[in-house]
Amino acid sequence: MKLWQKDTEVNKDIERFTVGKDREMDLFLAPFDVLGSMAHITMLESIGLIGKDELPVLLNELRTIYTEIEAGNFTIEDGVEDVHSQVELILTRRLGDLGKKIHSGRSRNDQVLVDLKLFTRHAIRETVENTKELFDTLLSQSEKYKSVIIPGYTHLQIAMPSSFGLWFGAYAESLADDMHMMLAGYRISNKNPLGSAAGYGSSFPLNRTMTTNLLGFEELNHNVVYAQMGRGKTEKNVTAALASIAATLGRMSMDVCLYMNQNFDFMTLPDELTTGSSIMPHKKNPDVFELIRARCNRLQALPNEISMIMANLPSGYHRDMQLIKENFIPAFQDINDCLRIANFMLKQVKVKENIVKDPKYLYMYSVEVVNNMVLEGIPFRDAYKKVGGMIEDKTFTALNTINHTHEGSIGNLMHTEINVSMQKVLDAFEFKKMDIAIQKLLSKV
Amino acid sequence: MKLWQKDTEVNKDIERFTVGKDREMDLFLAPFDVLGSMAHITMLESIGLIGKDELPVLLNELRTIYTEIEAGNFTIEDGVEDVHSQVELILTRRLGDLGKKIHSGRSRNDQVLVDLKLFTRHAIRETVENTKELFDTLLSQSEKYKSVIIPGYTHLQIAMPSSFGLWFGAYAESLADDMHMMLAGYRISNKNPLGSAAGYGSSFPLNRTMTTNLLGFEELNHNVVYAQMGRGKTEKNVTAALASIAATLGRMSMDVCLYMNQNFDFMTLPDELTTGSSIMPHKKNPDVFELIRARCNRLQALPNEISMIMANLPSGYHRDMQLIKENFIPAFQDINDCLRIANFMLKQVKVKENIVKDPKYLYMYSVEVVNNMVLEGIPFRDAYKKVGGMIEDKTFTALNTINHTHEGSIGNLMHTEINVSMQKVLDAFEFKKMDIAIQKLLSKV
Amino acid sequence: MKLWQKDTEVNKDIERFTVGKDREMDLFLAPFDVLGSMAHITMLESIGLIGKDELPVLLNELRTIYTEIEAGNFTIEDGVEDVHSQVELILTRRLGDLGKKIHSGRSRNDQVLVDLKLFTRHAIRETVENTKELFDTLLSQSEKYKSVIIPGYTHLQIAMPSSFGLWFGAYAESLADDMHMMLAGYRISNKNPLGSAAGYGSSFPLNRTMTTNLLGFEELNHNVVYAQMGRGKTEKNVTAALASIAATLGRMSMDVCLYMNQNFDFMTLPDELTTGSSIMPHKKNPDVFELIRARCNRLQALPNEISMIMANLPSGYHRDMQLIKENFIPAFQDINDCLRIANFMLKQVKVKENIVKDPKYLYMYSVEVVNNMVLEGIPFRDAYKKVGGMIEDKTFTALNTINHTHEGSIGNLMHTEINVSMQKVLDAFEFKKMDIAIQKLLSKV
Amino acid sequence: MKLWQKDTEVNKDIERFTVGKDREMDLFLAPFDVLGSMAHITMLESIGLIGKDELPVLLNELRTIYTEIEAGNFTIEDGVEDVHSQVELILTRRLGDLGKKIHSGRSRNDQVLVDLKLFTRHAIRETVENTKELFDTLLSQSEKYKSVIIPGYTHLQIAMPSSFGLWFGAYAESLADDMHMMLAGYRISNKNPLGSAAGYGSSFPLNRTMTTNLLGFEELNHNVVYAQMGRGKTEKNVTAALASIAATLGRMSMDVCLYMNQNFDFMTLPDELTTGSSIMPHKKNPDVFELIRARCNRLQALPNEISMIMANLPSGYHRDMQLIKENFIPAFQDINDCLRIANFMLKQVKVKENIVKDPKYLYMYSVEVVNNMVLEGIPFRDAYKKVGGMIEDKTFTALNTINHTHEGSIGNLMHTEINVSMQKVLDAFEFKKMDIAIQKLLSKV
Repeated sequence: MKLWQKDTEVNKDIERFTVGKDREMDLFLAPFDVLGSMAHITMLESIGLIGKDELPVLLNELRTIYTEIEAGNFTIEDGVEDVHSQVELILTRRLGDLGKKIHSGRSRNDQVLVDLKLFTRHAIRETVENTKELFDTLLSQSEKYKSVIIPGYTHLQIAMPSSFGLWFGAYAESLADDMHMMLAGYRISNKNPLGSAAGYGSSFPLNRTMTTNLLGFEELNHNVVYAQMGRGKTEKNVTAALASIAATLGRMSMDVCLYMNQNFDFMTLPDELTTGSSIMPHKKNPDVFELIRARCNRLQALPNEISMIMANLPSGYHRDMQLIKENFIPAFQDINDCLRIANFMLKQVKVKENIVKDPKYLYMYSVEVVNNMVLEGIPFRDAYKKVGGMIEDKTFTALNTINHTHEGSIGNLMHTEINVSMQKVLDAFEFKKMDIAIQKLLSKV
Repeated sequence: MKLWQKDTEVNKDIERFTVGKDREMDLFLAPFDVLGSMAHITMLESIGLIGKDELPVLLNELRTIYTEIEAGNFTIEDGVEDVHSQVELILTRRLGDLGKKIHSGRSRNDQVLVDLKLFTRHAIRETVENTKELFDTLLSQSEKYKSVIIPGYTHLQIAMPSSFGLWFGAYAESLADDMHMMLAGYRISNKNPLGSAAGYGSSFPLNRTMTTNLLGFEELNHNVVYAQMGRGKTEKNVTAALASIAATLGRMSMDVCLYMNQNFDFMTLPDELTTGSSIMPHKKNPDVFELIRARCNRLQALPNEISMIMANLPSGYHRDMQLIKENFIPAFQDINDCLRIANFMLKQVKVKENIVKDPKYLYMYSVEVVNNMVLEGIPFRDAYKKVGGMIEDKTFTALNTINHTHEGSIGNLMHTEINVSMQKVLDAFEFKKMDIAIQKLLSKV
Repeated sequence: MKLWQKDTEVNKDIERFTVGKDREMDLFLAPFDVLGSMAHITMLESIGLIGKDELPVLLNELRTIYTEIEAGNFTIEDGVEDVHSQVELILTRRLGDLGKKIHSGRSRNDQVLVDLKLFTRHAIRETVENTKELFDTLLSQSEKYKSVIIPGYTHLQIAMPSSFGLWFGAYAESLADDMHMMLAGYRISNKNPLGSAAGYGSSFPLNRTMTTNLLGFEELNHNVVYAQMGRGKTEKNVTAALASIAATLGRMSMDVCLYMNQNFDFMTLPDELTTGSSIMPHKKNPDVFELIRARCNRLQALPNEISMIMANLPSGYHRDMQLIKENFIPAFQDINDCLRIANFMLKQVKVKENIVKDPKYLYMYSVEVVNNMVLEGIPFRDAYKKVGGMIEDKTFTALNTINHTHEGSIGNLMHTEINVSMQKVLDAFEFKKMDIAIQKLLSKV
Repeated sequence: MKLWQKDTEVNKDIERFTVGKDREMDLFLAPFDVLGSMAHITMLESIGLIGKDELPVLLNELRTIYTEIEAGNFTIEDGVEDVHSQVELILTRRLGDLGKKIHSGRSRNDQVLVDLKLFTRHAIRETVENTKELFDTLLSQSEKYKSVIIPGYTHLQIAMPSSFGLWFGAYAESLADDMHMMLAGYRISNKNPLGSAAGYGSSFPLNRTMTTNLLGFEELNHNVVYAQMGRGKTEKNVTAALASIAATLGRMSMDVCLYMNQNFDFMTLPDELTTGSSIMPHKKNPDVFELIRARCNRLQALPNEISMIMANLPSGYHRDMQLIKENFIPAFQDINDCLRIANFMLKQVKVKENIVKDPKYLYMYSVEVVNNMVLEGIPFRDAYKKVGGMIEDKTFTALNTINHTHEGSIGNLMHTEINVSMQKVLDAFEFKKMDIAIQKLLSKV
């Protein structure tokens, strides 16, 4: 059963090839498809395309379907092409011809567009919440380990003193900056494409402002041709934001793998959080961090994949866009799995306390010594050369004490300010507006 | 001459290989390097690392260098490794040992970081301004051609009526959404990394808040380890925003190439804006749009290239990051060239008036006919089948009149609202804060 | 059950996260895992690590499992980590402790390596065969339609006469060139990594040449550290070859979509091979070609994704490599689906006969006219200017006859030579060597 | 001066934008452009389009230009669009109208195609030669350091004994496999597109087989439409091969950076091959390897960039293809710089001798102990558990002796076989055929 069924039977191989993973992906869109339909028909009633008496019947049944979806009692039946067809099929089974009326004044193009935007808003919120949890863990670990000194590396060479306070805190702040990208993705997603029909609008006197309000969108995708351009563009920009989080997690995971390596030996994990080898009985491997790293690298490649699919396509809908769903929708599962498990792991990671006692780290104090000379009046370049000479001669010694006090340094981690930066961007999402609208829509009669 | 000169002579091949295009790229950073130094030494004076009497001498000379750079009278001399070394060399030539003092309390790592952030802020502003100009042109062409109907395509098949009003307006609105990505890139760029030194802070009591204010940054990159993580991350996220603009321009260019194709024949360009063929005397080719498209596709691949360079590198500076400059800095030239020339071309494009008179476009009115039946009370699915039958039988006719009135449709292009959406995001940049700070810094004595 | 089971219970969330889609992917590897084990234990027996009497028992049981896999009667049970564990588990259930012996002298690292190489060889063969079928169809359509003239475009502008003979034949020849990349991928895949254990070899006196011969590999991955480097590298290079085929199919699909567009109208498909619209009853959409195009673009992005996962990882196994399976293994399904359905569709495509009668195509003969002047002795540049003038003045006329006779032109399509080029590269694969070895191994007692 | 000059003056901005870096890139193509012209006119004479007496005059002058190019005395003058125009301009200045005749029977499209193929063949040869030199160095270092044991890592955890013999040898063998990709790129490049004109052939009775032989191509790009498809496709597949080498070099560089890190401390470089820090006087940074790594990652992103430019473009020439030159041509400089400098550096790298004496490496012998138990008759899985227990109890000891003897292991590095594998693929290039043809062509009278 297809919304566009004609008399000619479409070849079975064609059907299998074109449907692809659509039915699997569409399950994620199901609740949002119902919400979109509820808003749409409420609007249709207001312009006289659905009867005053018909609307509550339809709304009621759609609400039932929504509850069934939430409860996990919804499937796309064999032979049904997509979620839109399935919802209409259920409605028609239960309500007869009345069920057919919900498709008036729209196309599958704007239907899937609004579904994707609603899904994306929702998935972004989950991502933001998981990011915030990890952020909190990182800041709290930063606080807890603020006095544990580790060597800082540049060029992978021992450079200057750092600390676990700095290390954990840096990744927290990185997540705060990632939220700016996420917010941009959210703003692009939080606009209503419904009413653009096949991408060129409709001859019906639709009230698009009404559906915008009903669905709690921030504003319209005004121009209907642009609304259609949201396919591909929304996904690409949102995944660029996911890629920003992914880059943070990936890099952190690389650090952890290095720090758990026995040559570094800065960190350990409880045995039950590592995996073993089939031939080496001594192995305790940080597989979780390796897989976070790999999944995050895959996520970093995703915006490029979407661009590749969209590149050079002229405007207007193309079936190509459907394929983007197959990697876009699971990307949220990926990033949220990574955020949650990173959070779980980092709470249990154990850091070594006396790392920098090892004499190989002595030279990381060389800048302190140079700086002390400068404070005594020696020009920097001269002090630099003098200390360089001491290192060459092996006469260099240092006190092993660190006195870094400026903003953002070992002695002044600025947790409050980092928290404020994060909170400021989080507040800008205003998820509550979306919640209130959806609650109101679901309680419509 | 290198800031880190030691006694051992570095092998010449090594030097050529490691310097690469740095000196060429660093010319773009030069004015910002001077600004960063002015802020830095003003702060150094405040904490006693530069004398009260020394500061004005240094500031004055730096200002002279700034003017020389602006006038195009600045080069990086042979044998000088980078812009930082060149500025210090000039200062030392002119002021003797005093010149050496400007490097106290920082590293080339935070110096290049602050240069890049200042450069990026500035380059983003130019990009935003050029985007706004193109946006205005698009809206004005949309207004001018709002009554020119063209066929709208889905699956590249003739679908429904569209218009040049919709077409131009859609790309304007697309640029408005792109600015959300640009704003995210700007927010990430507009934070002060100065004082992070080699990525682990300094034992000097630096006042990073002071340099933040002097340079007009919105806030600090608080954590010094995170400040260093800004390398690569800033570039990647900013180019993701450029890629969003690029996707808009690229798609528009593909449309133009298609519309100028004789099978479509929707648009023409004056002869002097097309190019010819070496063997086909009749050719008038839209090379400019092909090259906008290609450059924009290259820009779309750039975030991926940066991710590839950064992927799996542990935290801390690596020389790899230097290479990112080679494609990051010219990316702004690319996008701005494309924006400017697209603006120039689109002002002169001529659209055909009577496109839809051609009988092959008849069927695009089929939905209107279906909708009219629906308005007369026939259920949508039934009307759809009936019209489908008329098309099969070749009995379909249509009136060729269009009555699309809803928000964002042919008859209601919502230019005011699109303008408001654009203006709202543009206002959020607050470029003025940056200007005021830089003006003040340059007039420092 | 895991090959590396220790006493500590691994956290359930960790397990779910680390296993990922492994069990699903491993089903594709199952027959090859059994073959690898048969070769391995045959070798183990030869060096005394398995008894003369034990070998036939194990071989027999493995052969049974192989038959079960081929018959679709093999699953990876809940709680079993991967295919290697599952096969060993079945063996142990049926044969007791004897089953445990098959893992001596290898690691899961070389086990999955050899599985992947065997799988890839096999999957490449299927891809090559499907490519050859499409190649044959294209050449036969080229022959069939060799006299149907179409306009050739440059810059998407009408340029010079072309033909469906040229168009079909070009894509055939493109596939022949793609096979050079495929052959490179095959050569890299067709080397034996077995015996590299965890990537550093074994203290057992393994006979790797023997397993190489038993499995029909062309040669050894000699160095064991290099054998391990085959992970990621093999996948990337093989997908680069798939991407080459994908680029051919994607471009051809774009052409078909354009040629089916009503403005071009060069081709049609029977109704049952197109799809419709939910609101536009007149639509006949080329979804299949749009989806080939999109899938092929996704395939073109795949080598990059693999590079992103591998970039900057030091040598030695990392768990990251496991994730590559999730998109590498299905890539073969994708390319083969696309090849098969393209073949199916192109056999049924109908081309229009009188395309070039339309007067808009007149100018494509301008070069013929120039060339005729040259043959009469007028210098090329002068003839070019003269004809250009005639076009400006609208006095240009042409005979509409084409006389292209040189190699590879409209009148001389060189099918025989293209066939020879294809056959030459196909012969180099020597799939028979692989078949003979596997048949022999499976009939071992 | 342009080959397609018309009366209308093309706008200056347009000209700057469209020419881009073409003139810079075209200098690399200059010698090949002359060779292509020599072959072309020799053929033109054979079909009567150039006089018997004219040919030697033209050939002689072209040979002079070739010599001037080789001597560095060739520039593309201001206002001259490309190398093709420049060569024709010089000829016309020196020989009058006769010079104009060389463009008969071809287009700039097939001219640049043949230039690029000739350039690419040549650049591939240089790359192959540099690869072979590095390969030889790696094998010789492998031989030299075959008895230096290092720990082998999996999951970045200490795993099993490895050696510098294995490490160096692995990268040598990796380069040998990369040559299979390079050979595929070479085969695709080594075919003659000349005579395809604008992509649709010519009405002149061109003899394309003759130019194929004159230029020493292996065979024709037969179909002229396919010949044009070589643009983009050749570049993408050749860069996929460069990316394969790049992945080898990048990974090796990552290893070196890790091994030079003080926590590993497996390798050092002479001081003059490292760089320092502007603030840390003790630093000796492996910048060269970081930049090899970064450049190689950029190269790995290049096939994707080319795919992005080409994706979804219909067949036929588009100006977009010109842009590919800007990164394709310099890619050879990049890879060859990296190969040469890696070779230079690795000859001077010093490896540490007694690395594995450190007690932290003890457990890497655990598999040896397990294997010894197996050789004594204990089933593998039981031995594995027993040794695991000893490690838990800290009762594990090991002998520190290694007895790996099988093919490709520490004790049997198979240098001869690796050399044979490399030589076999190198022989398949048959560069001599190309040399002989070019020499013959250059000595034509």
